Amino acid sequence: MSLTVVGSIAFDAVTTPFGSREKMLGGSAVHFSLASSFFTDVRVVGPVGDDFGEAEYAVLRNRGVITDDIEHVPGGETFFWRGHYEYDLNTAHTDDTRLNVFGDFAPKLSDASRESDVLFLANIQPDLQREVREQMPDAKFVALDSMNLWIDIARDSLLKTIEGVDCVLLNDAEIRMLTRKPNLVQAARELRAIGPKVVVAKQGEYGAALLTEEGYFGLPAYPLETVNDPTGAGDSFAGGFVGYLAATGGEDLSHETLCRAMAYGTAIASYNVEEFGTERVSRLTRDEITARVGELQKITNFVDEPIALRA
Amino acid sequence: MSLTVVGSIAFDAVTTPFGSREKMLGGSAVHFSLASSFFTDVRVVGPVGDDFGEAEYAVLRNRGVITDDIEHVPGGETFFWRGHYEYDLNTAHTDDTRLNVFGDFAPKLSDASRESDVLFLANIQPDLQREVREQMPDAKFVALDSMNLWIDIARDSLLKTIEGVDCVLLNDAEIRMLTRKPNLVQAARELRAIGPKVVVAKQGEYGAALLTEEGYFGLPAYPLETVNDPTGAGDSFAGGFVGYLAATGGEDLSHETLCRAMAYGTAIASYNVEEFGTERVSRLTRDEITARVGELQKITNFVDEPIALRA
Repeated sequence: MSLTVVGSIAFDAVTTPFGSREKMLGGSAVHFSLASSFFTDVRVVGPVGDDFGEAEYAVLRNRGVITDDIEHVPGGETFFWRGHYEYDLNTAHTDDTRLNVFGDFAPKLSDASRESDVLFLANIQPDLQREVREQMPDAKFVALDSMNLWIDIARDSLLKTIEGVDCVLLNDAEIRMLTRKPNLVQAARELRAIGPKVVVAKQGEYGAALLTEEGYFGLPAYPLETVNDPTGAGDSFAGGFVGYLAATGGEDLSHETLCRAMAYGTAIASYNVEEFGTERVSRLTRDEITARVGELQKITNFVDEPIALRA
Repeated sequence: MSLTVVGSIAFDAVTTPFGSREKMLGGSAVHFSLASSFFTDVRVVGPVGDDFGEAEYAVLRNRGVITDDIEHVPGGETFFWRGHYEYDLNTAHTDDTRLNVFGDFAPKLSDASRESDVLFLANIQPDLQREVREQMPDAKFVALDSMNLWIDIARDSLLKTIEGVDCVLLNDAEIRMLTRKPNLVQAARELRAIGPKVVVAKQGEYGAALLTEEGYFGLPAYPLETVNDPTGAGDSFAGGFVGYLAATGGEDLSHETLCRAMAYGTAIASYNVEEFGTERVSRLTRDEITARVGELQKITNFVDEPIALRA
C-alpha cells in the first residue's frame, strides 16, 4: 500500500512565545509525509528551489520518504512563510508569504506516484487539487485539506474538488465557513451529501472530531505541558490519520478503524508541537507513537456505573 | 447526602439566532440545582424579589429542589440579565444587567443548609463565597465557579477563596487568566498547589477537561444538531458533576468517579442547550440522562489494535 501527497515544501520562519527559528524545513507536504512515513511508503510531490539542499532531503529520506517526485526548479527559491503565534497558539499570524517556485506549481505526477493507492491533497489551490485527483482515477482513498483563503476566493472550485474525494480534513471553523452552517453536525452532513464519506473537523488544542454516516467520534488533544510551535500540527495529524488508513488497506472505513486512525493522527500531532517545525517528528520512534496512543486511550476512557437517579 | 448551592436566581432575556425569550427563569443557582436534583437533596440559597412567584418556585419544586432558603426580599426585584448570542454560541454578549436584590445579597444559611455535606459556590463575589464556605467548615466537598469579572477586579480575594475549596470549575480561558499561565496543564497544577485537588476546565462546545494529581481526562461535548440557547450550560454541567459526587458520598474523588461525574455533567449540559433557559432540563428524565451518558461513552471510546509501524 503506498501513498502520494501533493502539497507545499517550504522554509518557515516562526516566532512563538517560546522561541523562534529563522529558516526551518516546513510545508504541508513535508509535515504530512514525515507523519505518514510510519505507516506506509510515501511519495512526496511538490516544488523546491536551489536553496533546498541535501540537509532538507535528508530529513525526509531518513524517514524513508520517497523524494523522487520533488520537483527542483533551477534558479528558483523554495516557498517561504514567516509567521508568529501569541500565547493563543491556535492562531497563526502570517507576517510574510513568498510563494517563489510554489507560485507556478503545476503538479506533475510520475507513473510511480500515480500508482499509489492513497492520495492526500494537502492545502493547495483547489483547481490544482482536482487536476491531481483526476490523474489518479484508481486511487482507493483520497483525502483533502484546504484553508480559509480558498473558501474565500475559490469556494465553488473547492466544493467541486470535494465532490471527488473520500475524506475532507478541515478546521472546524473552515467547515462552518465553507458550508455556511454554524452547526458542525449539520455542516458535516452537508459535505457528505456532495461526496466524501468521511469528514474530520480539526479543533486545534481541543482535538478533533470524526463525522460519518455511521457515527460521531470526538477525541481531545493530548494534554501537553510544553507546546513550542504548533506549525504543522494539522498536517501531522492528517499524516497519521491518512497513513493509518493506508496501512490498513485504504478501503477499510469502518468506524473502529477511523477512530484508531484519529488516535494515531492525534498522537503524532502532539509530538509535532513539542518542538519547532519538523524537529520532534523527525526523530520520533514507533514506541513513542504506540505509547501516546495508549495514553490517549487512557485519558479519554470512562466506564459508567449505574447510579440511582432521582425522578 | 445533601447539597447546598449558593448563587444567583434570575430572570433572563435571551436572544440567539434560533429564537428569543423575554423573561425566563435563570441564574446559576437555578440551573445548578435543577441539574443536581437528579442525584441528591438540593437546597438552593439566593435572593428573589416580588416578581418571583409560584410559577418559578414550581419549576424548582417539581424537581424536588428545597426552596426554603430562597430569600424573598419584599419590595425588591429579582436579578435580571439580558444578553444575546451570535452564531458563535460560545460567547455571551451582555446587553443589560440589573443586580436588583442580588446587589445587596449577604447569604444567610439556615441550620439545615449549613448541615449539607456538599457545597457549591456558584459564581458570586469571591468574598461572599468565602463567607459562605466558612459557615460550613464540616462540608465534605466544596466546589466553586467564578467568572472573568472577579478575576479582573478581585483576583486576590478569589485566590484566597480557592485556597479553601476542594474543586474549581472554570472556563479554560478563565483558568489561564487567573493563573496567568497560557498552558492549561501548568495552570491547573498551579491552582492545585494552593488548595483544590480537582480542577475542571469547561471548554464550551468542545467539552471539558479534568486535571488532578492522579491524571487527566478529556471529554468532548455531546454533538448536537440543535442548540438553541447555551445559557446555563456551565451551571448544568457543574450541577451534574457535583451532584454525582454528592450521590457517591462526596468523599470519593477517585479518578474513575470523577470521570463518571464529568460524563453526567456533560450529559445534562447537552440537554440544557437544546432549548431555552430551564425548559429542557425541567422536564428531563432519568432515562434520558442515562441514555446520553451511554452515548458519550460510545462516541469517545476507541480500541487500539497493534499495527506494525515503520522504523
